[in-house]
Amino acid sequence: MSLDAVLARIDDQMPQALDRLAELLRIPSVSTDPAYAQHCRAAADWLVADLESIGVSAQRRDTSGHPMVVGHVDGPAGAPHLLFYGHYDVQPVDPLDEWRTDPFDPKIEDAAKGKVIRARGSSDDKGQLMTFVEACRAWRDVTGEMPCRITFFFEGEEESGSPSLVPFMQENAEELRADLALICDTGLFQSETPAIVTMLRGMVTEEVTIRGPEVDLHSGFFGGLAQNPIHVLARMLAGLHDETGRVTLAGFYDDIPELAPELRAQWERLGFDHAAFLGAVGLSEPAGEAGRTPLEMIWSRPTAEVNGIWGGYTGAGFKTVLPAEAHAKVSFRLVEGQRPDAVRDAFRAHVKAALPADCTAEFHAHGGSAAGIMDMSGPAFEQARRALGQEWGREAAYVGCGGSIPIAGHFGEVLGMNAMLIGFGKDDDAIHSPNEKYDVESFHKGARSWARVLDALSAPS
Amino acid sequence: MSLDAVLARIDDQMPQALDRLAELLRIPSVSTDPAYAQHCRAAADWLVADLESIGVSAQRRDTSGHPMVVGHVDGPAGAPHLLFYGHYDVQPVDPLDEWRTDPFDPKIEDAAKGKVIRARGSSDDKGQLMTFVEACRAWRDVTGEMPCRITFFFEGEEESGSPSLVPFMQENAEELRADLALICDTGLFQSETPAIVTMLRGMVTEEVTIRGPEVDLHSGFFGGLAQNPIHVLARMLAGLHDETGRVTLAGFYDDIPELAPELRAQWERLGFDHAAFLGAVGLSEPAGEAGRTPLEMIWSRPTAEVNGIWGGYTGAGFKTVLPAEAHAKVSFRLVEGQRPDAVRDAFRAHVKAALPADCTAEFHAHGGSAAGIMDMSGPAFEQARRALGQEWGREAAYVGCGGSIPIAGHFGEVLGMNAMLIGFGKDDDAIHSPNEKYDVESFHKGARSWARVLDALSAPS
Repeated sequence: MSLDAVLARIDDQMPQALDRLAELLRIPSVSTDPAYAQHCRAAADWLVADLESIGVSAQRRDTSGHPMVVGHVDGPAGAPHLLFYGHYDVQPVDPLDEWRTDPFDPKIEDAAKGKVIRARGSSDDKGQLMTFVEACRAWRDVTGEMPCRITFFFEGEEESGSPSLVPFMQENAEELRADLALICDTGLFQSETPAIVTMLRGMVTEEVTIRGPEVDLHSGFFGGLAQNPIHVLARMLAGLHDETGRVTLAGFYDDIPELAPELRAQWERLGFDHAAFLGAVGLSEPAGEAGRTPLEMIWSRPTAEVNGIWGGYTGAGFKTVLPAEAHAKVSFRLVEGQRPDAVRDAFRAHVKAALPADCTAEFHAHGGSAAGIMDMSGPAFEQARRALGQEWGREAAYVGCGGSIPIAGHFGEVLGMNAMLIGFGKDDDAIHSPNEKYDVESFHKGARSWARVLDALSAPS
Repeated sequence: MSLDAVLARIDDQMPQALDRLAELLRIPSVSTDPAYAQHCRAAADWLVADLESIGVSAQRRDTSGHPMVVGHVDGPAGAPHLLFYGHYDVQPVDPLDEWRTDPFDPKIEDAAKGKVIRARGSSDDKGQLMTFVEACRAWRDVTGEMPCRITFFFEGEEESGSPSLVPFMQENAEELRADLALICDTGLFQSETPAIVTMLRGMVTEEVTIRGPEVDLHSGFFGGLAQNPIHVLARMLAGLHDETGRVTLAGFYDDIPELAPELRAQWERLGFDHAAFLGAVGLSEPAGEAGRTPLEMIWSRPTAEVNGIWGGYTGAGFKTVLPAEAHAKVSFRLVEGQRPDAVRDAFRAHVKAALPADCTAEFHAHGGSAAGIMDMSGPAFEQARRALGQEWGREAAYVGCGGSIPIAGHFGEVLGMNAMLIGFGKDDDAIHSPNEKYDVESFHKGARSWARVLDALSAPS
């Protein structure tokens, strides 16, 4: 059986694979700082050369920002066409003095829970990206070809807002379109359960300014008589939730489906330790919607959150001002069934309905995107889930993600492709922070996982 | 009759009086800027010399800040002993480019409503201070003596927090104590009705910090599950008032007396134009406690106001943070019957009662002072009110002041003296702003008013 040989090859070649990863990690491809532009280009060139070395026809594709890498390789007739996405750019490293090693001189360390690769980008996302490449390399080494047709698509601007991504996808839609996109930029659930993200919350962000008097007033002269915009704002924001933690906006929950029973049962089997999750940040009790489990609260239920508030005098000491205006930044995490525009409209209506005489509201829309719900109707998700379970020795899970991963949405919106998010990061990887690491276990079993997933997805149906 | 002669003398000598005021206004006695310290000293010396010129035994009394001026002069036996307070220091003049004339080169200008003296300090407080000195000068010119024993007490730090005032009063209590303090640092009601301030609101200022998670959280990972301190704070602040605008703190209104019927009737006769008062700052409707008149709202009813609020991300763009803490600065204007400590305690209890699990509150007391209620039981207030009415040709009013004038409280607390606040400023004097002015009418009729008040208070009872 090819798969067993491929897995054995991955095991055998692990030292060489780690050396290759170390080469890539030595390139300081920080995308947000223009001073590192040449290094981003070098990382793209390295990837092109590495893909070529395994028989992929690859090119660096320059953009007005950092380059993309696109590669194509054929597979056996009848197998699907998969696209794999990863990003080669990394976060800046400051504060540098908090690193115990050089962030661009990767080291294999013996840590308490096993060996780790310590370097910027080891987990986010060079190490994850290379798990897939190593799986492909082993497959070709063993069988002489890839298990299926594969398009490789690597980005160099993920950590700086991906300005070139959607335009590039639009301009190269025909070239990039495949049957399914695989994305490796997520993690194991609670650092141990292999997971496929099948729902991502969307978001609406909105800034509101409440205006009252034309100028700041002295509370001695006007206090008790004049409108205070901070009071008006506080009442509006307090009124966003009822006593049960439900959002009060009109229609907010109208079209949200209840969780499918099988998914609910699977989430229950995950045994999410919310006490540990909250305890790590000094909290103890779930504070969301009454009657919902903690996982529902963060994955499948929508939120209204005030992310910033300001108004009046906020400096040292005291000033008895009645301010002319008060401000808040408010965001809503959206789930299946919610339309960003409808939520934004309902919020604005809520604010306007609460405006007293002499006050006005001004709104500034910062952005909006619907929830990303993967289409699980075909066999691919169950095939991949079984494959992951075999590698990790425990049932793999379909999980939600409370945040947004824009790339998943882009594949759907721009290319009409479904995406499957699988990754092997752990909660303590310190991505975006000093001393980032990736467990050698994540790297090794990650590559093996992809070999199994490729095998499962490529099997004739 | 002496009074008529004194009034005629004031009229005759108005050109000279304006010249004297101009001399004082030319001294740039800005107290808050150390670069002007010698000018503050010069202003004090000028006042000492001017008081000496009218037979007052006066001294510059140095402090660790700017000097005080203290003068004493005897009067006929049987007449009361009055103390007169004013301040010779002025506000800074910036933004200087908004002044149409040199702020320290006083000019008499013909303005739409009559002649004005244009200069920094013309209204606040050099012009007001000199109304009293000119009345005394005329009295002595005509009668050869003062109408009663008078202590003059001028301060040079009123615009910079009066750091030396209370210590100086304490150290010189015996010397400063008199039967009644007269203070000239207030205005005409609605710029036309002579007024004696008989009630000043007190204040409690408090800063509160609500803490939730130990660190700022990402709303994608934690949103919907974790406490958001901004929400907790917004609920607490929204809960400070009920739907009728009443403050909800326990016991807040318990010991507040209703307005005496005669005072209520007098306030009604004032015909306060709240539409114009609010209209000037872009508002139209009284927003305070239901069932109270606008004057009650600002003079005789207490308030709870949020003067500042901040938390989370307040910069440009958007950040979906769940902040670890949120803050507010809250003040309460107090009226007769309220104790600052009790109000502070009730606020803290309100906050603590609203704290959910996992949240804590930290309080920082910024200050507190009870309302200042003048003792009107003797005949002096009615005597002064009648005298003012005679000068201005309309009934003089007892008014409230929504803000605090600390000096009035200091006379009561440190020296056990009652204070009578009479002043002639107008609403458009632009004190603390560019192009400050004092109407020549205020200066002239102000001096005449003091002559009448001195006559009324000095009459054998």
